[in-house]
This record gives sequence, structure tokens and C-alpha cells, in this order.
Amino acid sequence: MNGEIIAVGSELLLGQIVNSNAKYLSEQLSHIGINVYHHSVVGDNETRLSEVLAVACNRSDLIIITGGLGPTKDDLTKETVAKFLGRNLVYDQETEKRIEAYFKQRDRTMTENNRKQAMIIEGAHVFPNDHGLACGIGIKADVQIIMLPGPPSELKPMFETYVAPYLGKQLKKQAFIESRVLRFFDIGESQLVKEIDDLLETQSNPTIAPLASDGEVTLRLTVNGDQKELNRTLLDETQEKILQRVGKYFYGVGEESLFHKLVSLLKEYNKTVTTAESLTGGLFASEITTIPGVSNVFSGGYITYSNKMKMDQLFVPESLLSEAGAISCECAKEMAKNAKAKGKSDYGISFTGVAGPDPLEGKPPGLVYIGISSEEKTECFELKLAGSRPNIRGRSVKYGAYYLLQWIRKEMEKVDE
Amino acid sequence: MNGEIIAVGSELLLGQIVNSNAKYLSEQLSHIGINVYHHSVVGDNETRLSEVLAVACNRSDLIIITGGLGPTKDDLTKETVAKFLGRNLVYDQETEKRIEAYFKQRDRTMTENNRKQAMIIEGAHVFPNDHGLACGIGIKADVQIIMLPGPPSELKPMFETYVAPYLGKQLKKQAFIESRVLRFFDIGESQLVKEIDDLLETQSNPTIAPLASDGEVTLRLTVNGDQKELNRTLLDETQEKILQRVGKYFYGVGEESLFHKLVSLLKEYNKTVTTAESLTGGLFASEITTIPGVSNVFSGGYITYSNKMKMDQLFVPESLLSEAGAISCECAKEMAKNAKAKGKSDYGISFTGVAGPDPLEGKPPGLVYIGISSEEKTECFELKLAGSRPNIRGRSVKYGAYYLLQWIRKEMEKVDE
Repeated sequence: MNGEIIAVGSELLLGQIVNSNAKYLSEQLSHIGINVYHHSVVGDNETRLSEVLAVACNRSDLIIITGGLGPTKDDLTKETVAKFLGRNLVYDQETEKRIEAYFKQRDRTMTENNRKQAMIIEGAHVFPNDHGLACGIGIKADVQIIMLPGPPSELKPMFETYVAPYLGKQLKKQAFIESRVLRFFDIGESQLVKEIDDLLETQSNPTIAPLASDGEVTLRLTVNGDQKELNRTLLDETQEKILQRVGKYFYGVGEESLFHKLVSLLKEYNKTVTTAESLTGGLFASEITTIPGVSNVFSGGYITYSNKMKMDQLFVPESLLSEAGAISCECAKEMAKNAKAKGKSDYGISFTGVAGPDPLEGKPPGLVYIGISSEEKTECFELKLAGSRPNIRGRSVKYGAYYLLQWIRKEMEKVDE
Repeated sequence: MNGEIIAVGSELLLGQIVNSNAKYLSEQLSHIGINVYHHSVVGDNETRLSEVLAVACNRSDLIIITGGLGPTKDDLTKETVAKFLGRNLVYDQETEKRIEAYFKQRDRTMTENNRKQAMIIEGAHVFPNDHGLACGIGIKADVQIIMLPGPPSELKPMFETYVAPYLGKQLKKQAFIESRVLRFFDIGESQLVKEIDDLLETQSNPTIAPLASDGEVTLRLTVNGDQKELNRTLLDETQEKILQRVGKYFYGVGEESLFHKLVSLLKEYNKTVTTAESLTGGLFASEITTIPGVSNVFSGGYITYSNKMKMDQLFVPESLLSEAGAISCECAKEMAKNAKAKGKSDYGISFTGVAGPDPLEGKPPGLVYIGISSEEKTECFELKLAGSRPNIRGRSVKYGAYYLLQWIRKEMEKVDE
């Protein structure tokens, strides 16, 4: 089955937002064996959307249209597709009830144009929206057309919960395209590629695709075949070959982030951590608490942005701050140790450094100290990072998670011995 | 002049990367008065690229093609366009010299396939690449075709330095398209649109385009005219008309976020804030510290994820936690008041609630209490949010910033009177 994605929205053509839905849907469709050969973007304009639709119908079996399902007058995807197919728009009672309930739950008044969102194309299949108002719509004409709401926070869960199973049923022969993403940290993309250059050249099934983003590098292995078991074996074998070369930078598989990994490990060994953050200003704690159920391993932390807070809350001695300074290993260690003690945790982790753009205490942006403290000892890690302020903060907390992960693994291995 | 953008690259169709070049180029083209009506993405495939080119030539004056200019075999943009136009590929000496110098400077050996990158289409204009190897190419056929390298770090400077002036010369009359983004919070898109429905209908210069994202709504006003001063006046007039209706939800213009606004206001009045976060786990502090120079108004905060931390660090009475519970107005107020006192700040702000996915204390995900405390009084705001865990956390901290912003404005107005 060949698919294509049409995004509708003048905000995309004005460059206000990036077409992240096309990326997401392409990835999802490839997982279920649908090849995507085209993306298009067109404005909220009936004539141009009809023209793009006509071209798409001539070359694809499946067309997914995103956006233009909102309540305003410039949202005209449903109307245009209905006209294009020569079908009527009709009220869908189920959807209308959902919309009413949505407003009731939020104590907000429903406006008349929201009622427009309860209209669907005659004979269509409805995909409920569990995170917003606009329902999704599926129609089997000569080609399969699916319309999804534009906001990613609505589109993604709708696709996963309703659209993927709906499409899965229609695929005559299940093709098995399977992917596995290997995640690496503390190694650059070019270095990683250099280490496995010959594998990249010679491997064709699975293929290996490196990708760098947000200070991490991933390798995506993609296997294509109609035997699930064989696919799995091929993936395993290639993974093993790769990890023989660069295993020490490998930390996880799939969508699992460093923070997921860290929380799993803390849970596994029934350990807790308390945080003390200066330059990262709560980002590490914020990242760790994105993970549901983290309350078993994380009770809280301290944001000691000023020196005064470092002294008052974490008992960093004034003499240390005036001699070594706040941007120092000494300070990082003191913060980690005292956070651990005050939070009554097994581990303390701290961040102090210069996020930029200006130097601090005569030290350059990107100089970061991470302290880690356990019952046994307290240590400090120095980083020299380049990049913008958000970049430096973002990578600092990832390094923190990575160092703590390694620290716990090492300690637990010793215990196990 | 009507333009369109074609991105070439299988990695886009596989969903490995997002088409950020299309966003960037659209924005740039709109600044110089070129309307973009279409984006397309197609793989590294000669037949499909030719077909997409044929469609594009029929509807646009300018086609910008990105990607597929690399040294490897699957890079075939130049070859395909040359064939499509019936022109030859020829060596460009200038480009060849540049490539040789590039390798010499880096002490690296030039490979034979790099020499391929010195080929251009006969009669083409060459845009030098100051940050990589692949040069850009411009051809005036029936339509204007421009080919640019895929990596954004090469494409962007090439566009700004060479392509924008090249296009500028060709535009017969310089049009000035100017945009202004008005930012609103605490009002839904449909509600906002309802309030200004008649303006949306009747306004054509500037146009008004609503956009909802991440719990905020923006209105983009876009004016088109050849007199800069008049454009500015038209924007001002329309802004005023809009704010007469929905001014109370308006908080800023352009790229300025709620947190930027909050930090500016705190600085303006020389005030400080201390944070106390439970469900948001440091996200508010982390957001406020993304802004450089925040140390004047923010000294730090507390992450009291567990009840124990709420008692130990913020002196929330055990009786309060067992009676009203941690998810309560009482707890939010206690947290805000004591954070303010412990941090010796002018304001305290607190967050407690249920981020989900599971209920807590029998209370549903999305129930959030925000406490704000100043010298004069302490109050609590209740939110009922829907959505995923990150969504609920993300919107909670935005509401926090918004409420605090309004609070400070109100207090300061009183002082000014």
C-alpha cells in the first residue's frame, strides 16, 4: 500500500510552524508496512486543496490529510473533501455528545462554531478525539482518505488508538517492516559512524541509519521481510555486531530516554535521589518527573540559583563560595552531599556551572560541574560544553542522568559480586 | 511571484527528520514578498522527482528544491533537473577550487565522488557554499528553479548571503510583507475567533490568522503594501480593534513568551519570586531560568514532590495533608506562603495537583491548584485541565506565569495610583 500525507494550513506555508505531523505519520506508517512516497502542504484554500487531492488520488492508495478540521471559517478540509467526492456533510450525534461533554467538563461555554466540528462526511468512519474537539474521519472511496486534526497532541493519540488498528485491518498482506532504535550517549555522530563504517556500507537488511539529535546519537536498524522471527534474529545479530564496537556508549533501546532508564534502575534497586540545581534551575527534576510513578524514587529537590540559597538551603560554606566559587567541583560536591542528607535519599546529584550567554566568576559558558553523592563517596564530573544556553542546560541534565546511571550500575554490580 | 518548495530525501519520507528547511524558506520568502502556496517532499527517485517537478512548473513561478546535492549515488537532484530541462551537466572550475581548498584546509583527502559536487547545470548561476561542499544552483527557464543543499547549517547562510539578494533583484516591485503576532492566554481558539468574527471576515489588509498551540492562541496580522509607514499604521489600527474586544487575554507581541514577560515585569518593579512545585516537579523554575539574567528576580525554589518534603521543607502541617490533602487549595496556599518566606522573596508561587495518568487522593488527573502569595495576601487558583501528563504539567506552569503576571500588574497599578 502506497500512502501520502497532505497537510493543510497556511501557517505551514508562512513558516510559522514546522510540519511535524508528516514526520510522525511517516514513521508510524512505515512501521505498519505502508510506503510513504509523497508529502504535500497546501493552504486553507478550496481550489488548491482540490487540485492537490486530484494529483494524490492518481498516485496513492492512501491519503492522510492533516489539519483544517477546526471550528473557524478558514478550516475547510471536510467541506473540500466532501465536494471532491460528491458527498454530503451530516451531523454525527456521537461526536456532538463528545463535544458537549468536553465543554461541560471544563466549565466552558460551547459556541455555535464548535457544533460545526460535529459534522462528518456521509458514510464515513469516525475516529474519536480523546484530547480535543475535532474528530478524525476515514472514507473508503477509490482511494482511502483519512482526515486527522492538526494539533500533534490530538493527532498522535488518535492515530495510535484508532487509526493504526483501522489501517492494519485493511492491509491485505501484512508486510513486516520492523525497526529498532539503539541509543548512544557521550559519543559524537561522526565518531560512531567511523567505528561502524564497514557495517553501514555492507548491511542491507537490516539497514542502519545514524541520526544525531539533542546531544544523543541513535542508530535505527530497519529490517524488511515476511517472517517475524527471522526479522527479529537479523535485528539481534546486527545489534550485537554494533555493540561489540561501541557498546560502552550504548544505553537503551527505542523511545526510552536516559531518564526512563534512570528511573527504572532506581526502582529496580529500590533507591532514591534528591536533586540540587543551580545552572539547570530545576530542569533535571522536571525531566525526571515527566515519568509517571517517579514518586517512589524521587521525593524532591532544591533549586539554589543564588549563592544565598546555596548557603541557606544546602549549607554550602561561605568560605567555599568565596574561595573556590560557586562554579567549582567543591561546590558541586557540597551541594550533592547535602541534598542527599537533607532529602534523606540514597543519592544526591547536583549541577552548577555557567549556562551563558555571559561568563560567571570569570568562567566561560559551558563549564559545568556535576556532583554525585552516595553513602560511600562523593565525586564531581567536569564538562566543557559548547552551544546556546538551552543547549548547555539540556545536555548538562542528560550527562547528569548518564553519570548517575553508570554510577548506580557500578555500585550495584559490586554489591552483586 | 508565487513560489513553492520541493524537498528531496527519503529520510523525510521515512519520518527520520522533520522538514525544517521548508519552514525556514517559507518564512524567508514571505519576508521578501514571495507567496508560498505549496510544499512537497519526494524521495531520492528520478521518476517521482520529475513528476513532482512537472506539476510544480505548471503552477509556480519559482521552485526551490532542497537536498540531494551530496556526493553519494542516491543524490540525484542535479541530474534529474538537468534531464528535465534538457540541459547538460558541466564542471564548474570555481566550485572545484573551493572543494579542493575545503579538503586542504582540513588536512583531509578529497575523494572522487566529491568531484561530482563541482558539476553544475549548463548556463546556471552558482551560489557558493561557505559552510560545506555542495554549491547551490539557480536556473532561469520558463520558471525559476533554485537548488540548495539539504543540511540547514549550509542552506540557511547560503540563502541569506546569496539567494535572497539574487531573488530580490528579480522582483520587479519590492513588496513589503510585514507580520505581527499577538499572543493570548486563558481563552480558547474558538472563543477568540467568535469575539472577532466580523473582523476576520472583513479584514483583508492586514489579514488576521488565528493559531492555537501549546495551550496558547496567537493572531498573526499580515500586511502587504509598498509603503512601510502605512503598513505599520494599518497593523496598529487592526491591533487596537482586536484588543478592544479581547484585550484582557492579551499578554504580548512576537516571540515573547509568558515567562519572558514575567521576568521583564519582575525586573521592572525590582521584585523577586520563590517557587514551590509538586506536580510540575521543577518545570516552572526550569522555564523561568531559561531566560538569561533571571538571577536578579529568582534566587531558587523547592521541589516538594512527596508529602514528607512538603512538611520538612515547606512546613505544610501534617493535619492539613491528612484532612484537605496535598491536592488542595489549602496546601497550595501554604506552599506558596512558606516558599516566599523561606526564600525571602516578594512573591511565592506553588503548584500542586494530579499530573496523571492515575488519580491521586481520589482526585482526577488535570486537577491543579496554583498558590500565589505576596506581602498583602495569599490566594489559590483552581484549574481543571485535560490531556496527557506532559500537557497538564506544561499548561499548569503557563497558567502559573499568567496568573502571577496579572497579580503583579494589578498590585503595581494600585501602587501607582
